[in-house]
Parts: sequence; C-alpha cells; structure tokens
Amino acid sequence: MAKTETKDKIIEIGAELIRKKGFNNTGIQEILNLAGVPKGSFYFYFKSKEDFGVELIKTYGNYFIAMMQKYFNEENLSGKEKLKNFFASRLNFMQEEDFSGGCPVGNLSQELGGINEVLRLELKKVFNTMTNLVARCISESVESGEIKSEKDPGELAAFVLNSWEGALMRVKVDKSPFALEQFEEITFNHLLN
Amino acid sequence: MAKTETKDKIIEIGAELIRKKGFNNTGIQEILNLAGVPKGSFYFYFKSKEDFGVELIKTYGNYFIAMMQKYFNEENLSGKEKLKNFFASRLNFMQEEDFSGGCPVGNLSQELGGINEVLRLELKKVFNTMTNLVARCISESVESGEIKSEKDPGELAAFVLNSWEGALMRVKVDKSPFALEQFEEITFNHLLN
Repeated sequence: MAKTETKDKIIEIGAELIRKKGFNNTGIQEILNLAGVPKGSFYFYFKSKEDFGVELIKTYGNYFIAMMQKYFNEENLSGKEKLKNFFASRLNFMQEEDFSGGCPVGNLSQELGGINEVLRLELKKVFNTMTNLVARCISESVESGEIKSEKDPGELAAFVLNSWEGALMRVKVDKSPFALEQFEEITFNHLLN
Repeated sequence: MAKTETKDKIIEIGAELIRKKGFNNTGIQEILNLAGVPKGSFYFYFKSKEDFGVELIKTYGNYFIAMMQKYFNEENLSGKEKLKNFFASRLNFMQEEDFSGGCPVGNLSQELGGINEVLRLELKKVFNTMTNLVARCISESVESGEIKSEKDPGELAAFVLNSWEGALMRVKVDKSPFALEQFEEITFNHLLN
C-alpha cells in the first residue's frame, strides 16, 4: 500500500473502533492489527495518538459534513424538508445498527471535550460547521415564510443540533427510536414553525 | 475504616475520576491509590469492574435525583419556576468548573450505552426517573394553565432532558455557557408555553 493509502486505512479502521469503544479505550496496537499494518509503524504516519485524533476528527468531520451537504443541496425542496430528510436518514442508520454506535463527533466530544484541549478545538470546528449548515436551511425556510419564528436562525440551529445530539445519546441508552422520533416531532411541529 | 465506609470512598473517588476521564479510561488501581485503600482489596468490595459500575451509577443516580427533588419539592413555586431554578443551578455549577466535567450519567451513557448491556440498563433507569421528575413539574404547569401545550408532559419532559444533555455536551466542546443559555431560553420561552 502507498503511504497515503495506509494512513487512510488506519484512520478508517480507527474511526470505526473509536466510535463504538471510545478514544482512550482503543489501543493503537488494536487498530494496527485490524488494519493489517506492521507493528510499530504507527509513528511513521502520526506524531502521537493526539495527532491521530486530530486527523481522525478532520476526516470524519469532512465525511459527515459532505453527507449533510448532499441532503442540503437537494433542489426543489424547502429548508425544512431538507432537514427532515437528513434527520430521518440518520434515524434509519441508527436503527440499522440497533442504536449501538451513536455520533462519533458527539461521542468524542463527551469523552475528550473536558480533558484534551487540542482535540476539543477540532471538535468545536466540526460542530460550528454543522451548525452553520443547519442554520442555512432554517434561513431558507424563514425567507420563504415556511418558518415564522423570529429567533436567530443560528441560535435555533445550535439548539436543534444539540438537542439531536442529546437524543442520539438517549436512543443508545433506551435501545429504542423513541427519543429521535420525539426530537423530529417536536423540532418540526413545535419549534421550527 | 468500616467496610461500608471504604466501599463508599472507593465509589466517591471513582465517580470523580470517571466523570472527567471516562469509565474504561480509569484504572481500578488509580482509584484505590487515591482512596488510600490497599492494593488488591477492590475485589473484596466489588465482584468486578462492571459490578462497581452498577453501584457507581446507582449511587450517583440517587444523589442527582435527590438534588432534583430538592428543587422540585420547593413550595410556593410553579412547575416552570422549579425547572428554571434547577437548570440555572446546573449551569452555575458547570461554569464554576469551567465546563470540563459534564453530566456523569450523560458521559457514561455516551461511553457505555452501546457496549455494556448491564450498565446500559442501569443508566436507562436513572434517565427514566429523571424524566418522570421533569414531567411532574410540566404537569403542574399544565394543570395551572402556565403551560398551554397539548403535548404529553412525559414526551415534553424527555425532549427537554435530552436537549439539556446535548447542550451539556456542547458547552464542554465550546468552553462557553452559550448552548446552555440557549437551551434555557428556547425551552422556557418557546417550548414550555
């Protein structure tokens, strides 16, 4: 494998393990074993586990943001419809994996936000971009009159995104879609109106 | 120290470490060292680390639920006022510790909900009790006419609690009170109306 290819593979396998087990609970050796990369070569690709964490958050953040954009760039849909489709797709995904994984950005934030300043700042950037994308959909709906709320779209977007993160955590604890279904119901029928 | 006293101390010290570092990332030895308990005596008190986790969740859950009840049993306050006081007190607490710790039940749920069935069920019980307590405040306000929403108080309560958990995660990432302030503003001025 070429250097970039190996590095990408380490990140990809690492992301999947870390999403389920957490960052600190996932060993470098475990990632390398699963990736089929020779022992000890980790530091050829990354300066430290923290450096690996930064690249992991960037890669996953970019992937997730691209997925949001795919939904939000759909033509002939209102801002609210785009948001509905996006959140519905994530609920389907969570259901398919029996609510075991959750959101990697949320998981890492919960785990590392309070203890690692470098990784916290990377996570913050991802959340800010996600918030801006949601805010743009809300703005579209405010402009078209679909949403009549006079609250700032950026503030509404942050509230919606944070509430969604909380609901993602709760469906994992409940092993039931209820919290996400309620999130969609209340967000779209009572808040974004 | 008596047996119960030592056990309580292990749980207390463990809870503080785990709240900041996570369950899997906190070693039994580290807890015992800080608690000043002799090496190797952990299994005299707990069958396993999982058994320790169950007791930790029960102890912390009871502590937190008692704190909520203290706010919710206040006389001469409306349901909404009780909720406002409770959430404001938690925001103060988060601010005092510079948003580094977060909610232990939320942290453990995020970390363990998908990977440990025994601990997941304990966490679920705590969330259900918390939801019921919030629902009772909402019901009081619905009965008095302070809240006019026709949504089921239990469903509103779950949404409010999950949104709060998401906001707690976000203030940790942002190291700013903004997400919790917005949570309070939107919950009390736009949702519980």
